[in-house]
Amino acid sequence: MSDRVFNFSAGPAALPLPALERAHENFLSLPGVGASAMEISHRSAAYSEIHERAKSNIKQLLGVPDSHHILFMQGGATLQFSAMAMNFLGEGQSADYITTGSWGSKAIKEAQNIGTCREAWSGKAGNFSDVPADGDLDLDANAAYCHYTSNETIQGVEYQTEPEVGDVPLICDASSDFLARPIAMDKYAMLYAGAQKNVGPAGVAVVILREDMLERVPDGLPSVLDYKVFAENDSLYNTPPCWAIYIISLSTDWLVNDIGGLAKMEEINKDKAAVLYDVIDNSGGFYSGHAATGCRSLMNVTWRLPSEDLDKKFIADAAAAGLSELKGHRSVGGIRASIYNAMPKAGCIALAEFMKAFQQKNG
Amino acid sequence: MSDRVFNFSAGPAALPLPALERAHENFLSLPGVGASAMEISHRSAAYSEIHERAKSNIKQLLGVPDSHHILFMQGGATLQFSAMAMNFLGEGQSADYITTGSWGSKAIKEAQNIGTCREAWSGKAGNFSDVPADGDLDLDANAAYCHYTSNETIQGVEYQTEPEVGDVPLICDASSDFLARPIAMDKYAMLYAGAQKNVGPAGVAVVILREDMLERVPDGLPSVLDYKVFAENDSLYNTPPCWAIYIISLSTDWLVNDIGGLAKMEEINKDKAAVLYDVIDNSGGFYSGHAATGCRSLMNVTWRLPSEDLDKKFIADAAAAGLSELKGHRSVGGIRASIYNAMPKAGCIALAEFMKAFQQKNG
Repeated sequence: MSDRVFNFSAGPAALPLPALERAHENFLSLPGVGASAMEISHRSAAYSEIHERAKSNIKQLLGVPDSHHILFMQGGATLQFSAMAMNFLGEGQSADYITTGSWGSKAIKEAQNIGTCREAWSGKAGNFSDVPADGDLDLDANAAYCHYTSNETIQGVEYQTEPEVGDVPLICDASSDFLARPIAMDKYAMLYAGAQKNVGPAGVAVVILREDMLERVPDGLPSVLDYKVFAENDSLYNTPPCWAIYIISLSTDWLVNDIGGLAKMEEINKDKAAVLYDVIDNSGGFYSGHAATGCRSLMNVTWRLPSEDLDKKFIADAAAAGLSELKGHRSVGGIRASIYNAMPKAGCIALAEFMKAFQQKNG
Repeated sequence: MSDRVFNFSAGPAALPLPALERAHENFLSLPGVGASAMEISHRSAAYSEIHERAKSNIKQLLGVPDSHHILFMQGGATLQFSAMAMNFLGEGQSADYITTGSWGSKAIKEAQNIGTCREAWSGKAGNFSDVPADGDLDLDANAAYCHYTSNETIQGVEYQTEPEVGDVPLICDASSDFLARPIAMDKYAMLYAGAQKNVGPAGVAVVILREDMLERVPDGLPSVLDYKVFAENDSLYNTPPCWAIYIISLSTDWLVNDIGGLAKMEEINKDKAAVLYDVIDNSGGFYSGHAATGCRSLMNVTWRLPSEDLDKKFIADAAAAGLSELKGHRSVGGIRASIYNAMPKAGCIALAEFMKAFQQKNG
C-alpha cells in the first residue's frame, strides 16, 4: 500500500484501510455467495445480513434507543434538506434553523421552498467562525422542529454539545462528524449524515429518526422522500444503494472491533486534531485558524497563510510530498485538512512536520 | 474466479467480469492518485475524468444527440417516477402512461400523487403478458408526455421498438434493457435507467434528457428532483454517487472496447435468450413462458413449471448446481432468469442443460 497518499479530502474522503482491505479481499466474490456485494439482490439473505449488520453496528456505537429507526436513503444530505420540511413542516407551522456555515445555509434555503422557516441564529455576519451559546438562540417554542449542523465541513466549525431547544424536536445534520464521538442520541428527534465523510462512499445517507415523528408525515409524498415509506419497509421499498451500505457495514465493523467504540474514537480524534492546532497556535500568526477556539472542529481544520500565493504554494508543495487534497473549499479558499476517523495520526504528524518546515522556508 | 456462480439475479445483477477485475486491480489506489475511487473529491481531476468517460461512453454507445443531456441522479427509477411529474406535468395538464407491468404500474401511481395521469393502455387484464400495437393506444394528443417501460423486469415483457406517440414527448423507463441494444435516441424526450441491472451497482440512475424539456421545469423544486439543477451543474450540484458512476465508466468501457458496441451486444443477447426460449418451446408445455411470443424479453426470461412445488424444487436444485437467483419476483412467482449484458452465453447454456435434465427427471 506504499502508493497510498495521506488523503485530506473533505468528502468523498479517506476510508479506514482495514475496511477497504476486507472489501478488496472479497471484491469478486463474497464468501459462500459467488458474486460481489454489488451483484446480489437486495432481497437476498446475503444482502440482508449486510443491511442488518450496518444497522446494528450504528445502534451499538451511538447507543440508539429502541424508539429510533435507522434508515438508509439516497440523495445525500441535500435530499434530507427537502425531506424534513416535506415530512414535518405542516401548513401554518414554522421551523427554526441555527445557521453556522455553508451547509446550514443550504438546509434552510431548500426548506424555504416548502414552508415557513426562520433563523434562530446565524453566524453569517461573523463569517461563520463561531457557534452560538444557548442563550444567544432566538427560539420559537412552537417550532415544528429546530435544525442545526453539528459540524460545518467548509468552515471547520463544530458544536461541542447539543444546543438546548426545550420540547421542540431537535434535528441534526451530522454529515461530517457522524460516528466521530459519543453523542446523546435521546436528545434527537432526527439525526442524519451523508456517508461520504466518516462512514462510507457517496450515495447513501444514514437517517436516525424517532418513531413519533412519523405521525406527522402527510400522505402522498414522493416515496424517495417519505420517511414513513422507509421506516415501514426497513429502507427496502425500492433498491437501496447496497454497495455503499456494505462499505458502511465494514467501516462500522472497524469502529466496533478495531477501534473499540466512539469514546476511544473521540480520544484519538482529539489527539490527532491537537497535532495540527498546536502548529497553528505556535506559528506566531503565520498560520491563522478560521474557527473561534471554542468551536474548532476535530474533523476539518481550516486556516490561511499570509497570502493567497502562499496558500497555493503550500497546497502544491504538500501534494508533491504525498499530502493530498488540502485546498480549502472553493467558496472560502485557504487550507482545509479533513482528518476524519479514517485519517491515522501519522498523517497529522506528517502534515504538522510539513507545516513547520514550510514556515521555516517561507515565513 | 472459480468460485463465481452463474448469477441470474434481476437486480442488483451480475456485472461484466472484465469491468469488475479492473475495479479490483485499482481498488485500493487509482493509478497516479493514491486513493480509491470511493475516496476522491467529486471536484478532483481524477473523478472528473471518470465522470466524463462514463458520459462519453454512453453518448457514443447510444448515439445520444447533442440536444440531450446525460445526467446521473440518485434514488433509482422510483425517484424518476416522481421527478418527471414534478418537472413536466403542469397545472391543468395530463400525462399518458402505457402500463405493461409492475414497474409501469408503480410509475403512474407515484405520478398520480402529483398531477393528472391517464392510462393510454394497460395490460393488467391480460396479466401483463403483452405489449400493445400502436393502433391499440388511446393517446391524448395534448398530453404533457407519454411514459412507457421498454422492458418489464418482473413480467419479462419487452417492447421490440418505440411506441409511436406523435408530437407528445416520449419518456421511457429503460432500467432493465439499458445499453442492451441500439435504439433511436432522437425519438425520446427522456430516457432513464436505474443502473443496477445492466450498467452498474444500485444507487445511480442515468437520465438522458432533451434540452427543450428544461423549459417546463418550475421554480422551487427540491434540488434532488430538479432536472434543471442537474443539467446546469453537470450532475455535480451535490456529491454524486461517485463509485457507482466509476463502475458505469468501466462497464461501458467494456461495451465499447471488448464487445464493440450495441449492435454487437444485441446480437449476443438475442443468441443468449434463444438458448432459453428454445428449451421452453421444446418442452411440450412442461415449461410455460409468461410473455406473449412477440414481446419476449431478451433480458428477463420468465416461465412456470406444472406446479409451485416443482418451481421450488427447480430453484433449489439449480442453486445447488451453481445457477443462482432464479426465483421469480415475489409478486408473481415462477421462475425468472435475468440474462443482462454481463451474463455470458455459457451461463445460458448451463441453465438450458439443467432445464432439460430437470424435465427428464421430473417431467
